[in-house]
Amino acid sequence: MTLVLSPEDVFASTDIPKMIDAIENGIREQATDSVEMPPRLNIPTTSGFFRIMPAVMKTSGVMGLKIFNGSVEHGVRYVIAIYDEAKGDLLTLLDAAYLTGARTGATTGIATKYLARENSQSVGVIGSGLEGRTNLAAVCAVRDISRAKVFSPNPNNRERFANEMSASLNFEIRSVSTPEEAVSGTDIVVVATNTTGQGDLIAYKGEWMESGQHINSIGATGGKLREINPECFSRANQIGVDSEFQVKAESGDAIAAVETGAWDSKKIEELTSLVTKPFNRENDHITLFKSVGTAVQDVMSGYAVYQEAKRRGLGKEINFLEHKLF
Amino acid sequence: MTLVLSPEDVFASTDIPKMIDAIENGIREQATDSVEMPPRLNIPTTSGFFRIMPAVMKTSGVMGLKIFNGSVEHGVRYVIAIYDEAKGDLLTLLDAAYLTGARTGATTGIATKYLARENSQSVGVIGSGLEGRTNLAAVCAVRDISRAKVFSPNPNNRERFANEMSASLNFEIRSVSTPEEAVSGTDIVVVATNTTGQGDLIAYKGEWMESGQHINSIGATGGKLREINPECFSRANQIGVDSEFQVKAESGDAIAAVETGAWDSKKIEELTSLVTKPFNRENDHITLFKSVGTAVQDVMSGYAVYQEAKRRGLGKEINFLEHKLF
Repeated sequence: MTLVLSPEDVFASTDIPKMIDAIENGIREQATDSVEMPPRLNIPTTSGFFRIMPAVMKTSGVMGLKIFNGSVEHGVRYVIAIYDEAKGDLLTLLDAAYLTGARTGATTGIATKYLARENSQSVGVIGSGLEGRTNLAAVCAVRDISRAKVFSPNPNNRERFANEMSASLNFEIRSVSTPEEAVSGTDIVVVATNTTGQGDLIAYKGEWMESGQHINSIGATGGKLREINPECFSRANQIGVDSEFQVKAESGDAIAAVETGAWDSKKIEELTSLVTKPFNRENDHITLFKSVGTAVQDVMSGYAVYQEAKRRGLGKEINFLEHKLF
Repeated sequence: MTLVLSPEDVFASTDIPKMIDAIENGIREQATDSVEMPPRLNIPTTSGFFRIMPAVMKTSGVMGLKIFNGSVEHGVRYVIAIYDEAKGDLLTLLDAAYLTGARTGATTGIATKYLARENSQSVGVIGSGLEGRTNLAAVCAVRDISRAKVFSPNPNNRERFANEMSASLNFEIRSVSTPEEAVSGTDIVVVATNTTGQGDLIAYKGEWMESGQHINSIGATGGKLREINPECFSRANQIGVDSEFQVKAESGDAIAAVETGAWDSKKIEELTSLVTKPFNRENDHITLFKSVGTAVQDVMSGYAVYQEAKRRGLGKEINFLEHKLF
């Protein structure tokens, strides 16, 4: 049987600390040679895109893919299909709208665990959407955070974020009226926006970076989007990425950094290296994490959610791919 | 809503002549620049393969992909997902085990329509499986066939094929005990086997080709499989393929033909060219069609089946990808 999971089922079956562990296991496996992850397919459609991201995890015993399509007019739809790697059974089909936000946050948690100062206590968040929430929650899962600030251009959105996330995380989150104020004096920054870089619309600027700060930037995952400027790449002492190839190919921020000469390959470390090799952070260094998402993150988080949903009896079983052919 | 279709639903919603038309429309669209079809992904797994074949058909207004995995021990599972190209809605998820056989047959029908002699009346079939059935049915949809012979190594299988297909097609099909006998004196040949080429296991040999004959070979879709020998490629005057790139990359028969020097690019025509440009066949020429399958065939046939299943009220609707995100 195949378990079909709605975003509500996925939400109820998501535990951010467990998802961080699941994805970190996937990244450790990626550092061996037992993962097959071809470059994702990015196919233009009349009004948007159709993307396909597969991964085969031979040691974890799962394989699958995310299929997502989107356009400005009709929004984005995400499906993840997870298979048993050895037997080939289709275990689950997930509506991955929430999962994509959760796994992006969990991946930021892994980067923060390996890049941010151990004694980090405060977070500045730019962006009040789903990704801002999951990224902040994941940062709080790996560091002992006791205060945070949030900025979003819409006052109602940032107030709501502050109230809801304060209740969820059990410490005070202040809504502030400028991005500079949100990040000033904080140990860790989360930039999670859909800004375009048109005009002055860069969400976070390198000139705001502070000694010892760690910055996570997970937006601008399309070539025409921008949320941080090239100075962020030139000022950071070390830069973590989930996939150097994919970040350079797809992130508008990384493309701009390459074009302006701010991209320095010597400073770049992929997560596979960060989680497997000792990394010594200088306390006054500035670190940056830039991600665009990988199929390993999707497959490992999707499988973790599937297991939890099964345990809780959530979702809907359908009899699919188990018919004898006449 | 997304319509989930079992192989029985797909079978009941398949009309071979209509599927030939649907795929031919897709191939005509492919000859313009409104189709996006990247090379398919072929990912090795521990015990087999995981393959992903997408296509975006901007004029037809559909897009989708086939996902299939297989191993010797656990068999093959095929899923096709079809989306509305403009809106991005997931219209249907099909168990494509039967559909894959049907669309392979329908594609052979298109090749036969453009390559075989107009006055072809007889067919020799080698192979008694699903593909033998769908390919013979499709040949009968494009030529006025009045007799056929079938060979398969297992006498029970070839007898059953002869009885069932005689009843279905309303003319006599004879079961014969050698492949040479099956194809001797016939106008059109269908080779649809899973032979490996080990030892003497070539299902059809170039030395059996007859003046004026048209041969369809749809097996040996993996590099290690073989069903026709290089002499077939050297003796044929014209050779049709569904995708020259994919046939040369994946078909064991084509790989062997290239290696032995029997592959002559000047004789090769893709279906996109055969269906859009006049092709003058000499009556005494020998023609060969070799296919490995394309995503355009999957998406166009899957959409045709979806439309017919909806009309008939078949399948099961599930509420998927239509949840508001909280």
